[in-house]
Amino acid sequence: MKKLINKPEDLVREALSGFAAAHADLVKVYFDPVQVVRADAPVTGKVGVISGGGSGHEPMHAGFVGPGMLDAACPGAIFTSPTPDQVLAASKAVHGGVGLLHIVKNYTGDVLNFELGAELARGEGIEVEAVVIHDDVAVEDSLYTAGRRGVGVTVLAEKMAGAAAEEGRPLAEVARVARLVSERGRSMGMALTSCTVPQAGRPTFDLPENEMEIGIGIHGEPGRSRRKLAPASEIAEVLARAVLDDLPFERGDRVLAFVNGMGGTPLLELYLVFHELTRICAGRGIAVVRSLVGPFMTSLEMAGCSITLVRMDEELTRLWDAPVRTPALRARL
Amino acid sequence: MKKLINKPEDLVREALSGFAAAHADLVKVYFDPVQVVRADAPVTGKVGVISGGGSGHEPMHAGFVGPGMLDAACPGAIFTSPTPDQVLAASKAVHGGVGLLHIVKNYTGDVLNFELGAELARGEGIEVEAVVIHDDVAVEDSLYTAGRRGVGVTVLAEKMAGAAAEEGRPLAEVARVARLVSERGRSMGMALTSCTVPQAGRPTFDLPENEMEIGIGIHGEPGRSRRKLAPASEIAEVLARAVLDDLPFERGDRVLAFVNGMGGTPLLELYLVFHELTRICAGRGIAVVRSLVGPFMTSLEMAGCSITLVRMDEELTRLWDAPVRTPALRARL
Repeated sequence: MKKLINKPEDLVREALSGFAAAHADLVKVYFDPVQVVRADAPVTGKVGVISGGGSGHEPMHAGFVGPGMLDAACPGAIFTSPTPDQVLAASKAVHGGVGLLHIVKNYTGDVLNFELGAELARGEGIEVEAVVIHDDVAVEDSLYTAGRRGVGVTVLAEKMAGAAAEEGRPLAEVARVARLVSERGRSMGMALTSCTVPQAGRPTFDLPENEMEIGIGIHGEPGRSRRKLAPASEIAEVLARAVLDDLPFERGDRVLAFVNGMGGTPLLELYLVFHELTRICAGRGIAVVRSLVGPFMTSLEMAGCSITLVRMDEELTRLWDAPVRTPALRARL
Repeated sequence: MKKLINKPEDLVREALSGFAAAHADLVKVYFDPVQVVRADAPVTGKVGVISGGGSGHEPMHAGFVGPGMLDAACPGAIFTSPTPDQVLAASKAVHGGVGLLHIVKNYTGDVLNFELGAELARGEGIEVEAVVIHDDVAVEDSLYTAGRRGVGVTVLAEKMAGAAAEEGRPLAEVARVARLVSERGRSMGMALTSCTVPQAGRPTFDLPENEMEIGIGIHGEPGRSRRKLAPASEIAEVLARAVLDDLPFERGDRVLAFVNGMGGTPLLELYLVFHELTRICAGRGIAVVRSLVGPFMTSLEMAGCSITLVRMDEELTRLWDAPVRTPALRARL
C-alpha cells in the first residue's frame, strides 16, 4: 500500500486538521464529535442543510460546506457512516431556528444513523426533514444498501437545495427541491482499478489488467458486470444508455450533465468522457445546458468515472446558477 | 494500460472538445493550431497573459484561462511542448494592444518554442515579455531542462500576474509581478507511483512497492533520491526542509503554501500533507497566510505530491486575493 499517510487510524483527523487550516475563512472543524460547520453558523432564519457519510469520497461532503450549499457535513471514518451523535451535534451547531434538511445517501448505515440523529435533534425541539438520495441505476440492492445506492445526484441536490435555503425558503420548500433533483436525476459509474482502504492495507477487489467493472459503487461494491476494457466512446455509451433509459430522459429534455472522477483518473480523461456524453445526448435530441466535470465524489484513488444526468427546468437552473462559496465548488460569488 | 480514452493520438483534441463544451461561458478553443482563449478576448487595453506546455498536467494551463488569470493557454501533445505557431496564434488572439506576458516553465522545448513564438509575434508588431519559471529545488539540471525545472510556482505566478494585468497595469509591471513570485517561490515534489503516457503504453519508470522518488519531475524525470516509503510526516519534512533552506525562508516570513497533487493522490492525503507543512512552518516561526491544496499541476495519474512556498507581502497577498473566474480556480468573483 503506497499512501501519503501516517497511521491509518489518524488519517481522517489529520486531514481534517489540514482542511480546517486551509479553509478557515469558510469552515470550522470540531473533533468531538467530528463535524465540519460553516464558519458563520448558525445563520438565523435560514434552513440548515446537512449531509455526511463515510470519508474517502473527498471533496464530498466537507468540501461543499459554505454559503449557498451545506451548513454542515458529518464525516465518518473511511467508508463508514457517521454516528448519530455527529449528526446531532452538527444539527445543533447549524440550527438557525427554522428547521433542518438532512440529505442522506442511500446506504443502510447512513440512513439508520441519520434517522437516529434526526430523532435526537427533534427531541431537542429542532424540526428535521430528511431526503434520501438513491440515483444509481446500476443495481437494485447492493452490499451496503437496500434499494438503489446514492451517488452523484447527492452533490447536485446539495447545491440546489443549498441555494434554495440560502434564498430564505422554508423547510418544506428546501426539501421539495432536494426531492425534485433526486426524482429527476440518475447515475451510473465504472472502475478501471480498485482503491485500497488504508486500514485494510490491500485493494478492495481484484480487477485483471484487461477488465473493467461497469456499475461500480463508490466503496468498490460490485456493479452490473465485468467486461473487457473498451474505448471511452463505448464505455460512455454503456453508462449513458443505462442512465438515459431509466428515467427515461426524452427528446427535448434539457439536462445538467455531471462527469465525476473516482479519484485516480486524470482530468483529461474526464473531459473526454464529457465530450462523448454530450455527443450521445445530442444524438437523442437532449440538450446539455449545464455541466460539472471533475473528481467531486471519489473513492480514494480508484480509477474510473461516473455520469449523472438531471432533467432541468427554469427553477433548478436558477438554483444551480446561484452563488456558492465552498472549498470545492465556487461560482458567481 | 487502463485509461478512459479512445485512440491515444486523439486524446488531447477529444478532451479539449469536452473542455470547450463544459466551459463555453469562459473559454473558446481553437484547433488549428490548438489554443484555449478567454471567451471575451482580446480585452482592449489589458496586457494579455499567456502560458502553455505539454498536456497531461491538467488543469494546468487551460483550466486557468479566464478573467483574473490567463488570457490564453497553448496545450501541446502529452508531455510535449507547444509549437511556435500555437504561441503565435494565441498571442494574436488575445493581444489587446498593450503587449503580452508569456509565462514559461523552464523546460528546454518550452523555452525554445515560446522564444520562437514571441519572435514571430514581435514580427507582427506585438510587444512580448517572457518570464521563465524555475522553482524546483530538487535538481540543477534534468532530463528535459538546463537549470531548474519550472513547477508549482507557475500556477501561482499565473494567478498573481493575471490579477495585475486585470487591474490594468502596464506590461513591465505585470512582468515584474511574475518575476517577483518566481524569485520568492520554491518547490519540490515526490512520487509514489509512475504515470503512463498513453502513446507509450507502459509506466514511465518502475518504482518498487516499498520505495518512493523524492524530487520527481512532472514528467517522471528522476529526482534526488529513491528512498524507502516513509510516513507522510517524514516525507513532508524532507520536502519542506529542501524548500525552506533553499530561498531561504526565515523566521517571521509570511508564506503562501501550496500542496499540489500529482493526479492519483486522494484529496484526503493532500490535506494531511498540508497539515504537516503548516506544522513544520510554525516550528520555524513562519506563518502560512494563504493556501492552495489540490491537484492543480498533475502528471496524468501519478500518485504523489509537491509543495510550494512563496514569501508573500502586502502586494502579492492582494493580487492572490483578487477575483478570478476560470474552470479550475475561482475566488471572490
